[in-house]
Amino acid sequence: MEGKEEDVKLGANKFSERQPIGTAAQDKDYKEPPPAPLFEPGELKSWSFYRAGIAEFVATFLFLYITILTVMGVVKSNSKCSTVGIQGIAWAFGGMIFALVYCTAGISGGHINPAVTFGLFLARKLSLTRAVFYMVMQCLGAICGAGVVKGFQKGVYENNGGGANVVAAGYSKGDGLGAEIVGTFILVYTVFSATDAKRNARDSHVPILAPLPIGFAVFLVHLATIPITGTGINPARSLGAAIIYNKDHAWDDHWIFWVGPFIGAALAAMYHQIVIRAIPFKSRS
Amino acid sequence: MEGKEEDVKLGANKFSERQPIGTAAQDKDYKEPPPAPLFEPGELKSWSFYRAGIAEFVATFLFLYITILTVMGVVKSNSKCSTVGIQGIAWAFGGMIFALVYCTAGISGGHINPAVTFGLFLARKLSLTRAVFYMVMQCLGAICGAGVVKGFQKGVYENNGGGANVVAAGYSKGDGLGAEIVGTFILVYTVFSATDAKRNARDSHVPILAPLPIGFAVFLVHLATIPITGTGINPARSLGAAIIYNKDHAWDDHWIFWVGPFIGAALAAMYHQIVIRAIPFKSRS
Amino acid sequence: MEGKEEDVKLGANKFSERQPIGTAAQDKDYKEPPPAPLFEPGELKSWSFYRAGIAEFVATFLFLYITILTVMGVVKSNSKCSTVGIQGIAWAFGGMIFALVYCTAGISGGHINPAVTFGLFLARKLSLTRAVFYMVMQCLGAICGAGVVKGFQKGVYENNGGGANVVAAGYSKGDGLGAEIVGTFILVYTVFSATDAKRNARDSHVPILAPLPIGFAVFLVHLATIPITGTGINPARSLGAAIIYNKDHAWDDHWIFWVGPFIGAALAAMYHQIVIRAIPFKSRS
Amino acid sequence: MEGKEEDVKLGANKFSERQPIGTAAQDKDYKEPPPAPLFEPGELKSWSFYRAGIAEFVATFLFLYITILTVMGVVKSNSKCSTVGIQGIAWAFGGMIFALVYCTAGISGGHINPAVTFGLFLARKLSLTRAVFYMVMQCLGAICGAGVVKGFQKGVYENNGGGANVVAAGYSKGDGLGAEIVGTFILVYTVFSATDAKRNARDSHVPILAPLPIGFAVFLVHLATIPITGTGINPARSLGAAIIYNKDHAWDDHWIFWVGPFIGAALAAMYHQIVIRAIPFKSRS
Repeated sequence: MEGKEEDVKLGANKFSERQPIGTAAQDKDYKEPPPAPLFEPGELKSWSFYRAGIAEFVATFLFLYITILTVMGVVKSNSKCSTVGIQGIAWAFGGMIFALVYCTAGISGGHINPAVTFGLFLARKLSLTRAVFYMVMQCLGAICGAGVVKGFQKGVYENNGGGANVVAAGYSKGDGLGAEIVGTFILVYTVFSATDAKRNARDSHVPILAPLPIGFAVFLVHLATIPITGTGINPARSLGAAIIYNKDHAWDDHWIFWVGPFIGAALAAMYHQIVIRAIPFKSRS
Repeated sequence: MEGKEEDVKLGANKFSERQPIGTAAQDKDYKEPPPAPLFEPGELKSWSFYRAGIAEFVATFLFLYITILTVMGVVKSNSKCSTVGIQGIAWAFGGMIFALVYCTAGISGGHINPAVTFGLFLARKLSLTRAVFYMVMQCLGAICGAGVVKGFQKGVYENNGGGANVVAAGYSKGDGLGAEIVGTFILVYTVFSATDAKRNARDSHVPILAPLPIGFAVFLVHLATIPITGTGINPARSLGAAIIYNKDHAWDDHWIFWVGPFIGAALAAMYHQIVIRAIPFKSRS
Repeated sequence: MEGKEEDVKLGANKFSERQPIGTAAQDKDYKEPPPAPLFEPGELKSWSFYRAGIAEFVATFLFLYITILTVMGVVKSNSKCSTVGIQGIAWAFGGMIFALVYCTAGISGGHINPAVTFGLFLARKLSLTRAVFYMVMQCLGAICGAGVVKGFQKGVYENNGGGANVVAAGYSKGDGLGAEIVGTFILVYTVFSATDAKRNARDSHVPILAPLPIGFAVFLVHLATIPITGTGINPARSLGAAIIYNKDHAWDDHWIFWVGPFIGAALAAMYHQIVIRAIPFKSRS
Repeated sequence: MEGKEEDVKLGANKFSERQPIGTAAQDKDYKEPPPAPLFEPGELKSWSFYRAGIAEFVATFLFLYITILTVMGVVKSNSKCSTVGIQGIAWAFGGMIFALVYCTAGISGGHINPAVTFGLFLARKLSLTRAVFYMVMQCLGAICGAGVVKGFQKGVYENNGGGANVVAAGYSKGDGLGAEIVGTFILVYTVFSATDAKRNARDSHVPILAPLPIGFAVFLVHLATIPITGTGINPARSLGAAIIYNKDHAWDDHWIFWVGPFIGAALAAMYHQIVIRAIPFKSRS
C-alpha cells in the first residue's frame, strides 16, 4: 500500500501550490510522533505531572466560577435586558475557554474538559494514567467552582436551576443527546484541527492562535444549543453544577451530558485521524 | 509596456518605506504562480482531492447546523430579549466561518461557500473540476445541516421561516439583489486580500490570521443586511434552508441568492486581479 | 544634548530586561526613516499612487455602506430588542475598520479616515499630495456609500436621521467637540502605537496584528460616545452621511466632526512623537 | 535538591512531545532573569522611567474616560434595550484593557492597574520605586478620567452612581471581597501566564498575542461580577470613580476594592511562581 501513502502525500503537495490559505503542506520535516503509551511509570514521579493536574483543577474551578456566576446573574433577573443576556452567557463560556486554554496550554495542554481529554486519549496523545488523572482533577475543580457560586446566594442558586444542564421542555432526550454529540464534535474537531502536530511542524505559529478558534467553537455551540440543553459539551461542567444543585430533575438527564460528549469526542477523533490525517492508510504501508 | 510593469513595481517599492502598516512589498522573492488548469486529470486520483470534498461537506454541514439552530432559537421566542438576539445570529454566522476556515484551510482551502469557490475559480486558483466538486459537496452538506435542525422541532421550524432567505417586506427584489451583490463583494474581497499569494510570499504570518477578517466580514454583512434578506452571500446556505423549508415564497426569491453572490464574487475577483494586483498590465509586458 | 539621547536609549534598553510584555527595545537595528517630502513628483506618475486612492475610495464606500445600513436597521425599529442593538452598531463600525485596515494596509496603508491621514501626515509619514488625494477619495467613497443606503429606503432614511452625526439633546456643542477630540485621540494614538516603525524594526509580527487593536479602538469609542454625538471620529463618515441626509440640523453641528477629529489626531501625533518617541530630543543632539 | 530541579525540567521536556497545544518547553535557551532590585538609582535619571509613568497616566485616563462614559450611557437610560447594555459595559472594560495593553506594553509594560503592578512587583519583575511611581500615576489618571466624564453631565453622573464600585444589595461585604479576590486572581494569573518570560524565551510570538487574553480576562470577570460589585479588580479605577462621585455609601465599601485586588494579585503571583514555575524548588538546589 505504499502507493496509497504516496498518493496522500502527493495530493497534499500538489494542491498546496494553489491553496488560498497559506498552510502549505511540507511533509518533509514532519515525522509522526509515536502514540503515547497507556501507562508511563516515569510520569508519576515527575513534578510536571502533578503540576499539570493542579493547573487543570484551577482552570476548571475558574471556568465554573465565572460561567455559573454569569448564568446566575442572567436567570435571576426578571428583565433579561438589564443583564448581559443569553449572548453574554455564551461569551462567558467561550471566552473563559479561550483565556484558560491560552494560559494552561504550556502546562497541561489546556483541556479543562473530560471530553477533550477523552478525544486526545483516543488519538493516543496522552497516557491513560494522565487522562484519568486530568478527568478527576477537572471534575473536582468544577464541583468547587459551582460550590463557590452557590455560596454567594444559596436561595437564588437553588431557585434558578443552579446552572445545571437539563433537556428543555419541547425537546426529547434524543434531541438533547444529539445536540450534545454534534456540539462536542465541533469542539473536539476544532481542538484537533487547531493543534494538529503535523501543522505545528510546518508552521510553528499556528498553535499560538489555537486557543481563539477553540474558544469560539465553545461560544458558537452555546449560541445554538442553550435553548435545547443549556449546552454541556463538557461533562465536568455538567457534573459540577449537578452535584451542587443536587435536584432530581437535573440528575435524571445527567447521563446525556456524559454519553453525548464522549460520543462526539470519539467521532471527532475518528474523523480527524482517519479522514483528515489518513493515518490507518499510512501505517499499513 | 515594460515601463508600465516597472512602474507598478517601482511605485510599490517606493511607497513601502513610509507605509504605516508593515506589509512592505518586496517583490523580489515572489513569482506569480501559474493559473490552475481547467481540468487536472491527476487530481481525480489523489486522496487529498476527495478528502478536501469531504472536509467541505462536513464544514458546510456544521455551518448550517449551528447557524440555523441559532436562528430558530431566536425567531421562535416571543421576547427577543431572552434569546441571543439578532446580533447573536450574526455572531453565529461569522464565528462559524472563522472557526471552520481556520480548521479546513489546510485541507480544502476552507471555502464553505460556492460564491467563494466561484471567485477563486475565476482567479484561476483552482481547477474547474475541483470547483464543481466543492460546490456539490457544499450544497449537500448544507441540505443535511438544515435537515438536522428541522428534525429537532418540525413544527417550530416550519412556522418560523426555517432560516430560509427571502426579501423582507418593504424592499424590492432589486434591493435584495443589490444587498447580496455588495455583501458577497465584501466577503470575497476580504478572502482575496487576506489570502493574497503575493502577501504570503512576503510575510508568511499573514495567512494564519486570515480566518479572522474573513469571519468578521461575514459577521458584518449580517449585521447590516439581516433586515433586508436575512443575508445569504452563500448560495449553499440559501439552498440548504430553502430545500428543507420548501415553501413557495422562499423559492420565489431563491434565484437572488445565487445570482447576487456570483455577481458579487466576480466583481471582487475582478477588483483584486485588475486594480489591486494589476495582473493584466503585467502579463502584457 | 548627546547625553539626553543616550539617556533615552539607555533607559529603554535597561528596562527591556524586565518588561513583562515582550516587545523588547533593540534599537541597534533600527534607523529613523527620513520624513516624507511635502511634494513627491514621482508619486504622481506611479500606478501604485492611484491604486492606493482607489483602494481608499472602495474601503470608505464599503465602510459607510455597512455601518449606515446597520444604523438604519436599528433606528427604524420600534423595539431595539429585535435588532442588533446599539452594541451591534458599535461592532459594525469597529469591525469594518478591522477588516478594511487588514485588507487595504498593504495597498494604501489602510487609513479610511481623513483624521488618520492627517495625523500620519503631521508625523511626516506621507506626502502632502498623497494626504490630500486620500482625503478626497475617502470623502467621495463615503458619500457614495451613504447614498446607496438611502437608495434602499429613501423615506426610512430621511425620517430616522440618516446616520448623520449631531450633538444629542442634553449635551452642549463643547461636550460634542470634547468627545470627538478624545475619541479621535484614542483612535490615532492606537494607530501610531500599533504601527510604530520602531516596533516593526524590532519585531516584524506586531504590525500584522495592528488592525485588531485599531478596530477595537473604534468599537470602544462608539460604545462610549454614541449617546453624545453618534460618534464621528472620522470626518469622511460624518460628511458622507451629512451630504446624503442634507438637513439643516445636521449641517449646524457639522464643523464639530472636522475640527474635533483633526485636533484629536494632532494631539495623538504630538503625544506619540514627543513623549513616546522623544524625537525632538533626539534630533537636537 | 538537585534531583528535584532535574525532575521539573525532565517532566516538562518529556511531556512536550505529546503536548497538544504547541508551546513546547525548550528550557535550554532560557535563563531565569535576576529579580529586579528594590531600588534602582539609575532608573530615576532615565527619560524612559518618566515616559513610562506618563504612559500609565494617559492609559488609565483613557480607560476611565471610555468605561465610565459607557456605564453612564447605560445606567441613565430607562430602557436598557436602547443602550449598549450591561454586556456593552463589559466589552468597554475588557476592550480598553486589550487596546491599551497593546499600545503601552512596549513603553511601560502596560499595567494600567495597581493590582497588576503589585503582582508583578511581588514576583520581582520591577523595582519598588517603579511600582510606587506607576500606582501613583495610575490613580491620578483614573481621577482625571472620571472627572472628565462627570464634566459632561454633572447631574446625571451624581444621580446614577458615578460608576463607583459598591457591593450590591443582597450580597454581604464578604461576598464582595471574595468576588474581587477571585476576579483579580483571574486577571493577574492571565497576565503572568501570557507574559511568562520563560515562554517568551521559547517562542517569541506569544507575548504579541498577550493583550488579547488579558483583555478577555477583564471582560469575563465583568460579565460575572457586575451584579455583585460592579467589578473593580483595579484599585485605580475604583478610586478614581469614588473620588469624583464622593458619596458616603461608595466610600464605605471602598476598602474592599483595594484589599480584594491586592490579595487576588498576591495569590496569583504565588500560584504562578510556586506551582507553575516551581521557582522555590529550583533556587534551593
